[in-house]
Amino acid sequence: MTRATEIHLVRRPRGEPVDDDFRAVQVELDDPGPGQVLVRNVVMSVDPYMRVRMAAVLPGYPSWDLDAPMDGSAVGVVLASAAEAFPVGTVVSHRYGWRDHALVPAGGLRRIVPDPSIPLTAHLDVLGMTGLTAFVGLRDVARIRPGEDVWISGAAGAVGAAAGQIARLLGAGRIVGSAGSAAKVRQLVDELGYDAGFDYHVPDLPAALAAAAPTGIDVYFDNVGDDHLEAALGSIRAHGRIVVCGAINQYNALGERPGPRNLIAILTQRLRVEGFTVREHLAAYDGFVAQASDWLRQGSLVSTVTVVDGLDRAVHAFREMLRGANRGKMIVRISDDPAPTGSAG
Amino acid sequence: MTRATEIHLVRRPRGEPVDDDFRAVQVELDDPGPGQVLVRNVVMSVDPYMRVRMAAVLPGYPSWDLDAPMDGSAVGVVLASAAEAFPVGTVVSHRYGWRDHALVPAGGLRRIVPDPSIPLTAHLDVLGMTGLTAFVGLRDVARIRPGEDVWISGAAGAVGAAAGQIARLLGAGRIVGSAGSAAKVRQLVDELGYDAGFDYHVPDLPAALAAAAPTGIDVYFDNVGDDHLEAALGSIRAHGRIVVCGAINQYNALGERPGPRNLIAILTQRLRVEGFTVREHLAAYDGFVAQASDWLRQGSLVSTVTVVDGLDRAVHAFREMLRGANRGKMIVRISDDPAPTGSAG
Repeated sequence: MTRATEIHLVRRPRGEPVDDDFRAVQVELDDPGPGQVLVRNVVMSVDPYMRVRMAAVLPGYPSWDLDAPMDGSAVGVVLASAAEAFPVGTVVSHRYGWRDHALVPAGGLRRIVPDPSIPLTAHLDVLGMTGLTAFVGLRDVARIRPGEDVWISGAAGAVGAAAGQIARLLGAGRIVGSAGSAAKVRQLVDELGYDAGFDYHVPDLPAALAAAAPTGIDVYFDNVGDDHLEAALGSIRAHGRIVVCGAINQYNALGERPGPRNLIAILTQRLRVEGFTVREHLAAYDGFVAQASDWLRQGSLVSTVTVVDGLDRAVHAFREMLRGANRGKMIVRISDDPAPTGSAG
Repeated sequence: MTRATEIHLVRRPRGEPVDDDFRAVQVELDDPGPGQVLVRNVVMSVDPYMRVRMAAVLPGYPSWDLDAPMDGSAVGVVLASAAEAFPVGTVVSHRYGWRDHALVPAGGLRRIVPDPSIPLTAHLDVLGMTGLTAFVGLRDVARIRPGEDVWISGAAGAVGAAAGQIARLLGAGRIVGSAGSAAKVRQLVDELGYDAGFDYHVPDLPAALAAAAPTGIDVYFDNVGDDHLEAALGSIRAHGRIVVCGAINQYNALGERPGPRNLIAILTQRLRVEGFTVREHLAAYDGFVAQASDWLRQGSLVSTVTVVDGLDRAVHAFREMLRGANRGKMIVRISDDPAPTGSAG
C-alpha cells in the first residue's frame, strides 16, 4: 500500500476556474497487480485543453468526471513493478498526472532513455505532446510548404514556442508570433527564431498583424480563436490554411462569444480551416521524437519551460497558465529527479 | 455593326441592390474579328455570387468594374462567325451574360450539342456551373462517403436543388434540406429526393435541424452562412466537413454580421471547413457533363428553373433571386430558342 495525493475536479468551473473547483484527496494505492507499475511522478504539465475537459459534455471532447483525479502528461520513475518491460528505476512518461503516485498499466507507459543533455521537462514539452502537436499541426494539417508565411498566436505558450521553431525547421518563410506582453514578444524574436512578433494587447489587432506580416500569410496556426481568428481571416492569402489547435479565448466562455465577422473569407479566399487533436496523430510520435531529439541536441530546437514547485500548487499553476503567466510549457514539479544511476538502462 | 443592349453596374450596392445601381446601355458591336463570333443570347442566369462581385474589392474575389457590362453564364446561338470551329447556327455557352448580343472569342465558347430531350436552360443549371458546383463540392471538397448524412442549406436554390439529387447519386445517407417556405420544403421532399426538409423561418434553427437529422450530420453543404453555420456546428459529428459554397445571408451585409458562437466545434470535433469556387474545378467539367447528361436522360437528375422573360427584367430577376423568390435556377430569357434545324450539328 502506498499513500498518494490526487487532485480531483469537484465542480465544473464557471468562467475562470477557482480553487474550490478542485480538491486534494489522499488515497491508498494497492501494490501493482500483474502488468502494472507504481510510479512516483516527478513532473507534470498543465495545459490549456484541460480547461475544456473540465466543462460539461462538449460534443466530441471527453469531459472529466467529477470527484475523480484529473489526468494529463507526467514523467516519473518506477518504484515497484509487476511489468517485466518496466523494472524499478525506469523513467517513464504517461497520462497519470495531477497526482504524486499512480498505478499505471504497462500499456500506458512510454520508456524515456535518460540523456544528460536533455532535461526531463523536455519530455513534457518539445519531445512530448506539445512538440508533436506543433509538428503535426504544421506538417500534416496545414501541410506547410517551403517559403510559406505563417502566423502563430499564443506564440510564447508551450505549443507556440515549439511551433515557431518547427515552422523554421520545416522551411517556412516569414514566421510571425503574437503574445501577451512586450517581454514575451522579445523572447519570440530573440530566442525562438520568430522573424517578428507583436503584443495582442493593441487597439487594432488586424493592423498589428499587417505590420508584422505586410504581404499577408499563408498559414495561421490558431491557439486563441476569436479576434485573432478574425485578424487572420483578414490577412490570409488565397488557398490559405487555418489550423485550429486551441481556442484559449473561448475556454472560459464556451458558446458565449460571437465568431469573426469576416468568415466569408473562407469562401472568397478558398480557405481550409481544420481542427485537430494530437490524440489522433500518435502514429507520428516515434518518428517525431527521433527527429526532435536530434534537433534538440543540435540546438536547433530549444525547450522553454516555466516550473512551479509542488503538487499542492498545481491548480495555481493551471490558473496562472490560463492567464498567460507562463513562458513556454507550464510544468509542475512534484518530486526530485531520479538519481542518474543508469540502473534503469 | 450590331446594336446590343448591355446591363452595366454603375454603383456598388449598399445592402440590397436597387434599380439605380444598374443601367441598360446601348452599344454598337463590330463585326467579329479573327477568332471571334457574334452571339445572340437566348438565356442567361442570375446567381447569388454576383452580389459579391458587385462589392468593392474583397480579397481573392474578382470585383466587377463600374460602368462596364457584368458577366455570367449564358447560352446563345452564333449569328456571325470568324472562328472556324463555331459556324453560324452553333449553340454555345459562354460567360458573356447580362447582354442580348456579345462578341465572344472562340476560347470563351463551349459548343452545346442540341438534344431535344434536354432544354437549353439545363445547360445553365444541372449541366452547367450549378451542377458542377454541387458535384465538386460534394465529391471533391466534402469527399462524401457512402452512407454519410448531409444537410444542404438553400436547398431549393439552384445549387441546392442539384446538390440534394447529386448527394443521393453519390450514395449519401440521410439528406436534409432547408429552404425559405413550406412550399419549397415540400418540393425538396416530393421532387428533389430529399429525405427531410425544414423551413428556416423558425425560432430555433438548431432544433429544426435536430428534428430533421436526429442523429446528426457528417457533411454540411453551406449556401447561407451565419445562423445556419452555427446550427451545423452544433449538429455535426467528429471529422465532419463543412463545404462553404455560398453565404447568401452575408452578401448584403459584408463584414457586419458576427459569426457563430460555437466555432470551437471545429477544434473539439476535428472538423474541416473548406471554401471553394467552381472556377478552380473546371478540369472536372467534361467528365461531369457526360455523367450528368446520362443522369438527366435517365430521369435520376432533374433540372428545376424559374424563368423571367426579358433582359430588361434581369435586374428584377436578380433581386428576386436574392430574396429567394426562385425555385431552382433563376433564368432570364433574352430571346427565342434557335430553330431546331440541326444545321449547327
